[in-house]
Amino acid sequence: MKAAIAGASGYAGGELLRLLLGHPEIEIGAVTAASSAGTRLGAHQPHLTPLAGRVIEQTTRETLAGHDVVFLALPHGESAALAAQLGDDTLIVDCGADFRLTDPAAWGEFYGGVHAGTWPYGLPELPGQRELLAKTKRVAVPGCYPTTATLALFPAFAAGLAGPDVVVVAASGTSGAGKSPKSHLLGSEVMGAVSAYGVGGVHRHTPEIEQNLSAVSGQPVTVSFTPTLAPMPRGILATCVVPAAPGTTAESLREAYEEAVKDEPFLTLLPEGVWPSTAMTLGANTAALQVTLDRRAGRIVALAAIDNLTKGTAGGAIQSANLALGLPEELGLPVAGVSP
Amino acid sequence: MKAAIAGASGYAGGELLRLLLGHPEIEIGAVTAASSAGTRLGAHQPHLTPLAGRVIEQTTRETLAGHDVVFLALPHGESAALAAQLGDDTLIVDCGADFRLTDPAAWGEFYGGVHAGTWPYGLPELPGQRELLAKTKRVAVPGCYPTTATLALFPAFAAGLAGPDVVVVAASGTSGAGKSPKSHLLGSEVMGAVSAYGVGGVHRHTPEIEQNLSAVSGQPVTVSFTPTLAPMPRGILATCVVPAAPGTTAESLREAYEEAVKDEPFLTLLPEGVWPSTAMTLGANTAALQVTLDRRAGRIVALAAIDNLTKGTAGGAIQSANLALGLPEELGLPVAGVSP
Amino acid sequence: MKAAIAGASGYAGGELLRLLLGHPEIEIGAVTAASSAGTRLGAHQPHLTPLAGRVIEQTTRETLAGHDVVFLALPHGESAALAAQLGDDTLIVDCGADFRLTDPAAWGEFYGGVHAGTWPYGLPELPGQRELLAKTKRVAVPGCYPTTATLALFPAFAAGLAGPDVVVVAASGTSGAGKSPKSHLLGSEVMGAVSAYGVGGVHRHTPEIEQNLSAVSGQPVTVSFTPTLAPMPRGILATCVVPAAPGTTAESLREAYEEAVKDEPFLTLLPEGVWPSTAMTLGANTAALQVTLDRRAGRIVALAAIDNLTKGTAGGAIQSANLALGLPEELGLPVAGVSP
Amino acid sequence: MKAAIAGASGYAGGELLRLLLGHPEIEIGAVTAASSAGTRLGAHQPHLTPLAGRVIEQTTRETLAGHDVVFLALPHGESAALAAQLGDDTLIVDCGADFRLTDPAAWGEFYGGVHAGTWPYGLPELPGQRELLAKTKRVAVPGCYPTTATLALFPAFAAGLAGPDVVVVAASGTSGAGKSPKSHLLGSEVMGAVSAYGVGGVHRHTPEIEQNLSAVSGQPVTVSFTPTLAPMPRGILATCVVPAAPGTTAESLREAYEEAVKDEPFLTLLPEGVWPSTAMTLGANTAALQVTLDRRAGRIVALAAIDNLTKGTAGGAIQSANLALGLPEELGLPVAGVSP
Repeated sequence: MKAAIAGASGYAGGELLRLLLGHPEIEIGAVTAASSAGTRLGAHQPHLTPLAGRVIEQTTRETLAGHDVVFLALPHGESAALAAQLGDDTLIVDCGADFRLTDPAAWGEFYGGVHAGTWPYGLPELPGQRELLAKTKRVAVPGCYPTTATLALFPAFAAGLAGPDVVVVAASGTSGAGKSPKSHLLGSEVMGAVSAYGVGGVHRHTPEIEQNLSAVSGQPVTVSFTPTLAPMPRGILATCVVPAAPGTTAESLREAYEEAVKDEPFLTLLPEGVWPSTAMTLGANTAALQVTLDRRAGRIVALAAIDNLTKGTAGGAIQSANLALGLPEELGLPVAGVSP
Repeated sequence: MKAAIAGASGYAGGELLRLLLGHPEIEIGAVTAASSAGTRLGAHQPHLTPLAGRVIEQTTRETLAGHDVVFLALPHGESAALAAQLGDDTLIVDCGADFRLTDPAAWGEFYGGVHAGTWPYGLPELPGQRELLAKTKRVAVPGCYPTTATLALFPAFAAGLAGPDVVVVAASGTSGAGKSPKSHLLGSEVMGAVSAYGVGGVHRHTPEIEQNLSAVSGQPVTVSFTPTLAPMPRGILATCVVPAAPGTTAESLREAYEEAVKDEPFLTLLPEGVWPSTAMTLGANTAALQVTLDRRAGRIVALAAIDNLTKGTAGGAIQSANLALGLPEELGLPVAGVSP
Repeated sequence: MKAAIAGASGYAGGELLRLLLGHPEIEIGAVTAASSAGTRLGAHQPHLTPLAGRVIEQTTRETLAGHDVVFLALPHGESAALAAQLGDDTLIVDCGADFRLTDPAAWGEFYGGVHAGTWPYGLPELPGQRELLAKTKRVAVPGCYPTTATLALFPAFAAGLAGPDVVVVAASGTSGAGKSPKSHLLGSEVMGAVSAYGVGGVHRHTPEIEQNLSAVSGQPVTVSFTPTLAPMPRGILATCVVPAAPGTTAESLREAYEEAVKDEPFLTLLPEGVWPSTAMTLGANTAALQVTLDRRAGRIVALAAIDNLTKGTAGGAIQSANLALGLPEELGLPVAGVSP
Repeated sequence: MKAAIAGASGYAGGELLRLLLGHPEIEIGAVTAASSAGTRLGAHQPHLTPLAGRVIEQTTRETLAGHDVVFLALPHGESAALAAQLGDDTLIVDCGADFRLTDPAAWGEFYGGVHAGTWPYGLPELPGQRELLAKTKRVAVPGCYPTTATLALFPAFAAGLAGPDVVVVAASGTSGAGKSPKSHLLGSEVMGAVSAYGVGGVHRHTPEIEQNLSAVSGQPVTVSFTPTLAPMPRGILATCVVPAAPGTTAESLREAYEEAVKDEPFLTLLPEGVWPSTAMTLGANTAALQVTLDRRAGRIVALAAIDNLTKGTAGGAIQSANLALGLPEELGLPVAGVSP
């Protein structure tokens, strides 16, 4: 099978290419971008040695045509128009936000403009999702924070152990902010510092986390989400705090998580007393989970660590593409990280 | 006036010395430690050029005697015995935990062993605290996380705008973990990674935060506290989420914070829309605060950034010492950080 | 084929395991260590999810027996005794220094004690070395700095363009210093700082670089080598400065390098004007090379960047093992790095 | 006395302001910039709490008039025009390159365009320089790399122990590259990586290092200079390798350095066996030096570490300004760094 990658000069595009280079059933076809079209890939992704000489083509209907799967790693808002031009029988996997939200009102509030629609949500670990993804030609890849927070909390909600008022505080590496040069993202600014941004329920990933947890819970869940920027290129650690339902015990909680991860190829529930670190997942499509009951505060504290570019974007995209293409879900996806 | 510093080879001791080198009224007297006694200070604190040749003495009653103020930067549990040997008329400022908690039961639960007692708590920004510190010969310097979380939230509690169920998630630089060599604190392990530890209400700073906020609030406050380790040497960013009392508005919230910081020499309420970064406070005795109302979730989100070694330890210690010695509170304490 | 890894809890051992997990022809057999024997691998290498439950065995003749290849990632000086106990028909690949030097006097000067002997040197890129490695049962894996400096300079020496007085200044990530906890390697110490060590020709890799370049040059080469520690977990960048032989032109220099790398699967000569970064090679078995003629100073400046744990240790070890086992040299070795 | 700072929103400008806030004899007057004129300083330098409310003025003759000293922290090439508009009796301290080089040909080769002229060079540690600076109204602040390399080597040249062929390899923090947003300076790109740039004698600081060392040596010195970028905001470590003159001994070398630093307030010759780290100098106006004789290679290896923004730019500028204003040279300049 053959894949086109649109947005090949950015971080998500680079990670898609890195992973596809090791995929045994998907060949890299067209490699496209906008302003960097006409230049060699090696100028943008020098770590992808085998592709260094490839010339980046312009992102158009023509260059993307004729592939079994098209991965879109474009700025938010650009996927819808492009997708409309591609045939219904091409699998389109969109790493952008355009088709993630089901609620047009939430779309309007957080993104503004017209809601392009809703595609099947590419988080196979959610109940029932794997089946939906197996028969779709369209995939909306989740945001990196929603992936992390949802993986941390879905077992608690699925087991009915968690109340509907969620607090999520997450630390992300800087690659989540993309490759466009901005002063506040300069190395001089971010090294040695942790900072907050998008505080107070205004980050666009807030309604997406609520959507996921409400679906699992069967009732409306409210999320207070605070993202922070940490001095590392990759990785997200989400700390999620939620009221424990009456009667929740440490044992019932652990059982719920063990049950939730037991058949999941990419989820690891860490041994008791071991806490997630983003270092456990660097470059891998894995999520490291842990949960505990804070008896003093009557709360469940659940944490997840992922690599925002792998499980949080490109790896998650390929995982869903594998399902939609009828391939084994794990194909070509690393389960061992790079550490230290 | 003359100060002795016990624990001079560690990070807190080094920061005390750095700040005292710039203090116009306090001269550095004895510089002591335990296992590094007999070696030169330059071998441990090579950044303190003017003190490089000083020989570290053994920490004993004799070496600490004859000073106006003795700063203790010792492992937890060692201060009480030493303090008992020093005269009542010497100002003792303890950077350790021994005398921070008022509740022996909380002491027993979180630290174990006998509760040594309670000393006036060295956070002058708390209501009424400045006056207490002005007439004491004993100061318990707050923990670095409690300093951060308390500064972030006390205005909301003082104004009656915050409910009693607090969630605190904080990221700290690695110097908070001290200078003893441990594998998980190696540069190879911490660079490029954020990790959690002490999750689930077990971190020793939990009861201290509760103690502070309960005192301000006038009612019991429960804290779910999760510390995380960030890849930077210094700095703490605390994200604090708390239910908003009915009727709280964005305006009343901002007013409460403006009121709380208006006479404080070391607290800055950032302009609206600007969020704290630890980079704003590196090497300074300042705290950068911000607060917002998350209307969607009905919660107050308050953040504070400090330098854990300065305002969080050594700077806070000197601030309280200034008060207890009858000196101007700000003396010798930097209000401009080092950045980038 | 089946491999045993001795020293599985350290950084080199972890990297060997990471790479072997992706090797199509070598299966991971015994996983052994000394003090951590009896514990689970997941406690030491949490990023290697598929191996987390493996129990580490004691490193003994018995546990290592019955494998096609034994990789030794042990402290310097421990390989010789162990190798002597293993059969002559087992391939032994030693990541330590014991068998790297050919000159007993150099061994005595830099390492002290008895010289254990000399094994075929595992740098297939050196002229004639690939053939030697194809028929050996013993491999001495090069040191990480010698790999970098040798790859940077061998084309210049092979083409007769370089004089015999070499200056090498290299920056290494902290994983090169290993996992044993030491104060000066704490994250607090290394983040935000570059420092020198082993200055003045005393670093043990000095005679190894001289040995390699002298062999290529056909005459004695002297190296002034200065290693520095950079605030990153992985990677080495070596800057190598050497007098240009009379008549050397920019063109003849570039031709020499193009010729040297043209059939090498892991060496990349960067396009003109692009300079090596360790980011190009993270997690990959590649080396990024560049060279230029400093006409003003009459010198060749050659640089190479590698990942010290991959091409510099574990990847290089597997590359040589592939040759010695009669497998394709590139098998199981990543040529795309992880970036950013 | 009153100082104006032109270029107040950049890194050099911010460091000038940080240091002047602690200067007992110089008051901060006009704070000016170009594109950020009209905004508050707090938006650009949030760490400078006491100046947060200051409005940045446009850089013009008028705003800079009426000050005892004007510090220019402008892009290269902008100082000459501005300086021409300011009166001859105002002290102008230029942190840019316009007036550093004495040789118009070198200027033409490395910078291009017309050579604006030569001002007294602001490195008081050079023989005779302190006297020149005491009676000037114009100071050309040295480049950060030239400061480092010159301080590392001038004692060896002054004592006649060094040959004229110098190799300098230096690692710099990213603040040396300024605050303008560029993709290759993003945190995602620089964290975790060391890279080279400006290789082969083309970096503009090359002729400046040669100028300094030739002046000390009394004969032409050639420098092969390679700068590298390290993942830290601040700091430069320069490794300098130079042939040892016949008869040079370890003792004569150390004596030369002891002699050279013995009256210098900002230079520290480290104890034997201790090697410079940039961590020793962060935020301080100090330089940490060390030197050794590599007997094997017949070379002197000299190293210096500084903070590129302090001793390397703003601190050096104030040190020279102190001299030119008739103030004590050390006034307002920190000799203790911030560490860890």
